[in-house]
Amino acid sequence: MATRKMILDLDTGIDDAMAIAYAVAAPDVDLIGIVSSYGNVLTPLSAQNSLKILELLGQPNVPVFLGESHSSTTTHFDVMPISAQIHGKNGIGEVDLPMPKRQPETKSGVDFLIESAHTFGKNLIVVPTGPLTNLAKALKKAPEIATEIGSVTLMGGALTVPGNVSPVAEANINQDPTAADQVFESKLNITMVGLDVTLRTLLTKTETAEWRSLHTTAGKKFADIVDYYIDVYKITSPHLHGCALHDPLAVGVALDPSLVSTLDLNMFVDTSKEMWGRTIGDPAKLTDKNPNVSVALTVDQATYLKRFMSYLSGLFAKN
Amino acid sequence: MATRKMILDLDTGIDDAMAIAYAVAAPDVDLIGIVSSYGNVLTPLSAQNSLKILELLGQPNVPVFLGESHSSTTTHFDVMPISAQIHGKNGIGEVDLPMPKRQPETKSGVDFLIESAHTFGKNLIVVPTGPLTNLAKALKKAPEIATEIGSVTLMGGALTVPGNVSPVAEANINQDPTAADQVFESKLNITMVGLDVTLRTLLTKTETAEWRSLHTTAGKKFADIVDYYIDVYKITSPHLHGCALHDPLAVGVALDPSLVSTLDLNMFVDTSKEMWGRTIGDPAKLTDKNPNVSVALTVDQATYLKRFMSYLSGLFAKN
Repeated sequence: MATRKMILDLDTGIDDAMAIAYAVAAPDVDLIGIVSSYGNVLTPLSAQNSLKILELLGQPNVPVFLGESHSSTTTHFDVMPISAQIHGKNGIGEVDLPMPKRQPETKSGVDFLIESAHTFGKNLIVVPTGPLTNLAKALKKAPEIATEIGSVTLMGGALTVPGNVSPVAEANINQDPTAADQVFESKLNITMVGLDVTLRTLLTKTETAEWRSLHTTAGKKFADIVDYYIDVYKITSPHLHGCALHDPLAVGVALDPSLVSTLDLNMFVDTSKEMWGRTIGDPAKLTDKNPNVSVALTVDQATYLKRFMSYLSGLFAKN
Repeated sequence: MATRKMILDLDTGIDDAMAIAYAVAAPDVDLIGIVSSYGNVLTPLSAQNSLKILELLGQPNVPVFLGESHSSTTTHFDVMPISAQIHGKNGIGEVDLPMPKRQPETKSGVDFLIESAHTFGKNLIVVPTGPLTNLAKALKKAPEIATEIGSVTLMGGALTVPGNVSPVAEANINQDPTAADQVFESKLNITMVGLDVTLRTLLTKTETAEWRSLHTTAGKKFADIVDYYIDVYKITSPHLHGCALHDPLAVGVALDPSLVSTLDLNMFVDTSKEMWGRTIGDPAKLTDKNPNVSVALTVDQATYLKRFMSYLSGLFAKN
C-alpha cells in the first residue's frame, strides 16, 4: 500500500502545533496539507501559525490553506476569552517565531479537502482538531467524499465526561454543532477522540525539559510554547497535574487505532439551546447496524506518550 | 461455593415484576428477600405488588420488607404522572391479582440489607432497580457493608445516551441523586446497568404470546401485565418497537457479567440544579486507579433474551 496521506484541519493553537509536529515526525504517513480553521484563534492567524510551525520544523513544502472564518450558522467569529487565555493571544503561548516566508495557498481549504478525497480516496486520513465547519462544507459541496475518504479521526466531543465549555459541550464541537452533526450523520468513517481520552493523556514539564535539553531552536521554542500551556492548565485544571494532549492524540489514534478502546455508537450532536453541542448516543438507533461513530473511551497512555516523545524529540533534535 | 444470595430492591412496577420472575427462575441463585422502594408506585404498594407476584409464582417464602417512602432529601413522595402512565396506577398494568396472603415483614428493608451483608458477605448480590435511597441509608447506618457485600448491580443511570426523564437524568437516579452519589462514591463493587444497555434489550408481543400459550395463570397474568407495558411503549417510545427489559436485565447481568461489555470509570452523580441526576465520569479522576463503577455499554441481546425467555417460560409453565 502506498504511504498514507494526512490532512490536518487546525485552529493553531498550542496542541495543534504539537499535532503538526507529530504528523511531520510520524514515519508512516505523508502530511499533504493543513487546512486552517477559526477557534483557538482567527483563521488567518491559524494559517500563519501553521506556516510558522512548519518552517520551525524544516517543512517548507507542506501547503497551508484557508478554511472558513466562522461557523456554518453565524456570520462572524470572535475568539472566546478562555481560548485566548489557554493558547495566548497569538495562539502559540506568546512565543515569538519568525514571520513565515510563505503565504497560505490561494485554493480554499474546502476545495483542497474535496480534491484530495478524489485523488487519494481510501488512502486519505483527515484529522480535524477544531470546529467541523470545513469538513461539513466540503461534504455539502461534494457529498461523494463521504465514502471516498479513508477515515476521519477528530479531536472533539465528550461522551463519558462533562464538556469543557459547558457541562455538556466540548470546545470544538461547541463552535459549530450544526456542522458537527452533519459530519456525524454522514457516511464518513469517523473516530471521535474526545475529552474521554485526551484528559487521560497528559504532558508535564518533565517532558518539555527533555526538548529544551536538546539545545535546538525547535526544541527550545516548543518547550517555551508548551510550558505556557502547562502553566495555564495549572490554573484552569489544577487536578490534572499536566496539560492534555488533545490534538496530537487524535493524530496518534488516526495512525494507530490500537492505542484506544472504542465504543461503536450511533451518535448525534445536540443543537438545542439546552444541550447545545452535546455529543451523545441516539436512543432511537441503539440497535441499528453500522453505528456512525467509533468513540475512543480509554487509551494506552504509556505507549502513546512514549511514542509521542520519541517522535517529537527526534524531530526537534534535527531542527 | 455456597449458592449465591440475592436481594432485590424494587419499586414494583412491571419490569420489576419481570426481575422477580428472572431471579426466582434463575437456577444459580437464592432470592432471599425483596426490599420495597418508592418510584413507579408508593412503597406500600410496591411491597404489596411484590407479594402478589411472589404468590403468583409459587414463592410463599421469600420475605418482603418495607424500605424508605421518599428520597433522602425530601419528606414526601408523589408518583410522577409518567410512571403511572407506564406501569398503570396499580403498578402492574391495571391487571387484577389476588390480594396477597402475607404482609411485609416488620423488620425494615434497610436493616435487612445490613444484616444480610453481615451474614452472607461476598456471597451476597444486591440488585436495586429503583432509587438508591435504601442502599444509601444502609451505608450510612453501617458503613462496613460497603466492603462486605459481594456486588451491587443497579438498574439506573445513562452514560452514552440521554436520560428518560430529562436530557441528562434516568428515572431511578433522578428520584434521589444525593443517595445515588453516596452509593457511587462508596467502596461498593458497583455495576451500572443503565439506559445504555436496557434500551438495547427489547421484548415484543411475540414473546408475551408465548407465555399466553402456556395456558397457566402466571403465563396469562404476566402476558397481560407486560402487554400493557408494550402498549404504552408504542406511545412513549414508538422508535423502539418493543418494551425495554430494564430491571430483569440488571438481574441477568448481576448473575452473568459476561452478558455485557463494560467501561470502568470514576463516576459521580450530579446534584446541581442544571444537571440534576446526571451519571457522568469525573474528569479529575480519569487517571486514578480502581474506578468506582463498571458501566455496561453493550449487551449480547440475543443470548440474554434467549435466557430470559427460557427462565420465564419455564417458570410460568409450572404456575
